[in-house]
Amino acid sequence: MPRHDYNFFAGQRISRIEALSDGVFAIAMTLLVLDIKVPMGEFHSESELIAAFWPLMPKFLAYLLGFMTLGIFWVGHATQFKFIARTDRHLTWLNIFFLLVISLFPFSTGFLSEHIHFKFAIGLYWLNIFLAGLAIYIHWIYACKAGLLNEGMATEEVFKAIQNRVIIAQSLYLTAALLCFINTYLSVAMTILVQLNYALALFFSAKESEVAEEE
Amino acid sequence: MPRHDYNFFAGQRISRIEALSDGVFAIAMTLLVLDIKVPMGEFHSESELIAAFWPLMPKFLAYLLGFMTLGIFWVGHATQFKFIARTDRHLTWLNIFFLLVISLFPFSTGFLSEHIHFKFAIGLYWLNIFLAGLAIYIHWIYACKAGLLNEGMATEEVFKAIQNRVIIAQSLYLTAALLCFINTYLSVAMTILVQLNYALALFFSAKESEVAEEE
Amino acid sequence: MPRHDYNFFAGQRISRIEALSDGVFAIAMTLLVLDIKVPMGEFHSESELIAAFWPLMPKFLAYLLGFMTLGIFWVGHATQFKFIARTDRHLTWLNIFFLLVISLFPFSTGFLSEHIHFKFAIGLYWLNIFLAGLAIYIHWIYACKAGLLNEGMATEEVFKAIQNRVIIAQSLYLTAALLCFINTYLSVAMTILVQLNYALALFFSAKESEVAEEE
Amino acid sequence: MPRHDYNFFAGQRISRIEALSDGVFAIAMTLLVLDIKVPMGEFHSESELIAAFWPLMPKFLAYLLGFMTLGIFWVGHATQFKFIARTDRHLTWLNIFFLLVISLFPFSTGFLSEHIHFKFAIGLYWLNIFLAGLAIYIHWIYACKAGLLNEGMATEEVFKAIQNRVIIAQSLYLTAALLCFINTYLSVAMTILVQLNYALALFFSAKESEVAEEE
Repeated sequence: MPRHDYNFFAGQRISRIEALSDGVFAIAMTLLVLDIKVPMGEFHSESELIAAFWPLMPKFLAYLLGFMTLGIFWVGHATQFKFIARTDRHLTWLNIFFLLVISLFPFSTGFLSEHIHFKFAIGLYWLNIFLAGLAIYIHWIYACKAGLLNEGMATEEVFKAIQNRVIIAQSLYLTAALLCFINTYLSVAMTILVQLNYALALFFSAKESEVAEEE
Repeated sequence: MPRHDYNFFAGQRISRIEALSDGVFAIAMTLLVLDIKVPMGEFHSESELIAAFWPLMPKFLAYLLGFMTLGIFWVGHATQFKFIARTDRHLTWLNIFFLLVISLFPFSTGFLSEHIHFKFAIGLYWLNIFLAGLAIYIHWIYACKAGLLNEGMATEEVFKAIQNRVIIAQSLYLTAALLCFINTYLSVAMTILVQLNYALALFFSAKESEVAEEE
Repeated sequence: MPRHDYNFFAGQRISRIEALSDGVFAIAMTLLVLDIKVPMGEFHSESELIAAFWPLMPKFLAYLLGFMTLGIFWVGHATQFKFIARTDRHLTWLNIFFLLVISLFPFSTGFLSEHIHFKFAIGLYWLNIFLAGLAIYIHWIYACKAGLLNEGMATEEVFKAIQNRVIIAQSLYLTAALLCFINTYLSVAMTILVQLNYALALFFSAKESEVAEEE
Repeated sequence: MPRHDYNFFAGQRISRIEALSDGVFAIAMTLLVLDIKVPMGEFHSESELIAAFWPLMPKFLAYLLGFMTLGIFWVGHATQFKFIARTDRHLTWLNIFFLLVISLFPFSTGFLSEHIHFKFAIGLYWLNIFLAGLAIYIHWIYACKAGLLNEGMATEEVFKAIQNRVIIAQSLYLTAALLCFINTYLSVAMTILVQLNYALALFFSAKESEVAEEE
């Protein structure tokens, strides 16, 4: 079997893993909105309708939280695949397990938005974030150890930067989750702040932001 | 790190942003139909069933409205990416925020179809259109300022044409929304007319339609 | 603006239309299954559960019908894009209107499965097929007239074959729909037979099947 | 019609079949989570909420089962397309029938999770697996017989390995299903074990794992 053909087809396979992943992320993101239910019934004035709209605010907050969580993991996934040049069956299955955890976010987000004043809901949401972080961490370590990275691009610095990103993010999420023992809203607020930090790249060190730039 | 590799991978990333976006648009479009509920129960004659079908008409109107709104923003998004050659983490996140707003359309469309005789429902729908317009506008300005466009293609004329398109469209949408103070149906009718105008490209000036041609 | 760049980007755009379309088709197909509801409640024996499963049969029939209808239009869409080399804003919007009609199939299929003994349900389903056929027909004629086809491939024979396919199929669907004045189940059976004929390519003339081969 | 053009367009078509398939798989996977309903109502303590969460465990088990089943068939599908170089209308329709069966998994998985103590539910789930296996088997045999494979890559060994994989997997699934006559939970446990075996590639013979490696 000629090398050239193998690379061609292996590359094709990476495109399919990415297509499946983009599909799962897009659907999980869009399903979040189904949790914001349009208020039904007869309304006799504008103010009555506005009064029925107001209680949806925690749902919008959960939507924002869920969308950003999925956005962060999608960016992390896309960043890894910028450096992954080949795939094998183990990496494929690590990816499927990662997607299995990602697909649970519409549930854990819905659970949180419904029971936001309970520590158990915070814990469940944190568990989902933790499992997603664990899955993407193992995915990266395996890809490196199995020699599936593009050698020209994936330097030791890149490897460390992506590895550390996951560890630091998970530490911050754990801290945010633990704040639920003081107040659950504080915990959600801190989680959203951590995510906004990642999304807006406010407090990154110079070296990290260089890798980020190539993201 | 060789330039060639960087371009290759950065290009791959653009394809992933586009894949995620196409997925979100496709799902948001298709979810709209879930709002048109099949009338249930026992029907004893054709005319009884037809009588139960008739009240679905506002739902079909909302479906048409929602699909065209999403169609217009999808065309706008695809047009920008015709000229975008590179991406960075900020553009990626501006795109995710844009998708966050796009994913809200099934909700705001459903809200409008349920409460079409209320100014608040018109206002909410307009707010969604405004936020989507704002997000796609910032996306474009940032891509230009950060030098992420294909320099050979994206002339000053293209930059202005796309920028003006958003501003003119948003002015028309605002006008349509304000008509709700006369009558909410008038407001919806005017919004659909604005959209049909964009979809059918009836009254475009020659210069604009040249850019459109390349769309 | 160099020709080469224009072709590159125009091609990219076709890939986005195809991505959006594949997404809409995939979701519409998969949403059909949501209409087959798992029987709920307490069941005390295998035979009780089987008895509750049996009434789902018309739903499975509707699922089969809906999936094949979508499959046929997807094949038709993909076949056209085999010959389409360029796109413009009109073709893009004709495509969005086509998807708007395609996205209605989960509704019209659900309506039919719920009210299969009513001529109105047959008529509604036929209307959806007719509108989809009309949209794909106009799409093809426009692509030809506007010179958007690959000139090397899209010979006069190909043009005619695709055009005639739509007309013959629509004639058969209309005949099937009209059978509802005798019996609505007969009408559904005939529609499924027409579709199986297209899917399995049983009775095609030699010339048509040559084009089909390239499909 | 020049050969080169034909290959170019035929290849494009394969990419569309893959896009449609990835979409259907991604949606079917993500829809599984909609079956895990967030417990609603007023809860007065953490322990009350936890007590309401506990009964969801069979739903999570069904989610795991359904996701792995879809993962296995997705890997099988992607593996076949690594070796498929051309397509014709028959292969396209065999693929659509395969997707028709795949889209039923959210239903059969939901049915199983709701009625896990009934042999009929096991039988229905097994029937879905069997039909999916049958469809992917016919798909592969047809692709080989019709000469649609990449001749350089798809050796006789590859052909046999993929063929045998389906037959062995289906034998194991049938065995697992038959265990329901002893106990339905035993049957589900055995199915999950078979799937974990395929996912983790624990007990593969050397020759099989070579092909798997290229997967």
